[in-house]
Amino acid sequence: MSGRLVTLEGGEGAGKSTVLAAVQARLLERGIDVVVTREPGGTAFGEAVRALVLDPARPELCAESELLLMFAARAQLVRELIAPALAAGRWVLSDRYTDASYAYQGGGRGQPVARIAELEAWAAPIQPDLTLLLDLPVAQGLARAAGRGAPDRIERENGDFFERVRAAYRARAAAEPARFRVIDSSQPVEAVRTAACAAIDAFVDAQEARA
Amino acid sequence: MSGRLVTLEGGEGAGKSTVLAAVQARLLERGIDVVVTREPGGTAFGEAVRALVLDPARPELCAESELLLMFAARAQLVRELIAPALAAGRWVLSDRYTDASYAYQGGGRGQPVARIAELEAWAAPIQPDLTLLLDLPVAQGLARAAGRGAPDRIERENGDFFERVRAAYRARAAAEPARFRVIDSSQPVEAVRTAACAAIDAFVDAQEARA
Repeated sequence: MSGRLVTLEGGEGAGKSTVLAAVQARLLERGIDVVVTREPGGTAFGEAVRALVLDPARPELCAESELLLMFAARAQLVRELIAPALAAGRWVLSDRYTDASYAYQGGGRGQPVARIAELEAWAAPIQPDLTLLLDLPVAQGLARAAGRGAPDRIERENGDFFERVRAAYRARAAAEPARFRVIDSSQPVEAVRTAACAAIDAFVDAQEARA
Repeated sequence: MSGRLVTLEGGEGAGKSTVLAAVQARLLERGIDVVVTREPGGTAFGEAVRALVLDPARPELCAESELLLMFAARAQLVRELIAPALAAGRWVLSDRYTDASYAYQGGGRGQPVARIAELEAWAAPIQPDLTLLLDLPVAQGLARAAGRGAPDRIERENGDFFERVRAAYRARAAAEPARFRVIDSSQPVEAVRTAACAAIDAFVDAQEARA
């Protein structure tokens, strides 16, 4: 079976870290060689960009620069890690990918969808095969996230910003139902994990049936 | 008189630093309040990007990421420094600007001109009013530059790369003769400085006549 790109998306406090570990474990149980990465980051260059773009000491960063930085990190991730892994038949599991730019820089910051699509077409042309969207009400997510360490530059945004992020994510999922699985992350964490693993099982079954 | 954006462009060893200082001094002599900046860089964020993009320890950086980083730094420079300065009636003198992306990322790296123009349109929409292009044969420029410290990631490129950079710069100048002044930088440095100051004087005279 050839490689597949699986992405995990969601807002603050949606439980991405827990689900990421569960999905990775389930793929390994299914005998699938998976490379786990994250955005922004995933390469030495990308992690340096991550430190820059999430630095809470840079409140002046303009929306255009934020969008360009996200794609700079992504372009490198695609060429250095994702494309070679897929070409070698490995699966890639990424904690966020291009949908996050549509949600955060598009919905959140108001950057035009056409501008993001244009960047995607040449900087990150590889599309995910499966995207799990962990969805929950903004207030619930922020309440969960509040228990963590100091928020980064983007996590410091207000509730309205995250409402726009959530709306953009949900619109993406509605527009591409074949690729997205929306998981209700307002449930207890065990139920979220179970739902994510069921989605992964169904996807792997379908890929095996095709192979 | 309202603000003007003057940019200085050229390849390796063209004498940009010397000319920059001379042009700044001449503008001050003419009673013009000028802000000097450079690319990539010019803002706290942009200087951090500069360190990243010129780091010789990152030979793996892909051409797409390099282009996106240059525009990330530029977008911030335009919004944080250039636009406010021009709005306040100040002049801005920049050591490189968007023409450098057409030359280095376009000519040098082969990134399509249409892609660069698309980024320019939304990330850096302010056009220079005057651009001094310091032009000289590549071999002569590289010989001059060889006497300096350790080369950065882009300075480590080979002669063919810099031939493409030079050709792209000259093509830009030929296409926009009203904006560009091409200065023969193969001359002794005093002659280059004199030619640059003469170009500045003529430009300032023309602006004063218009005002």
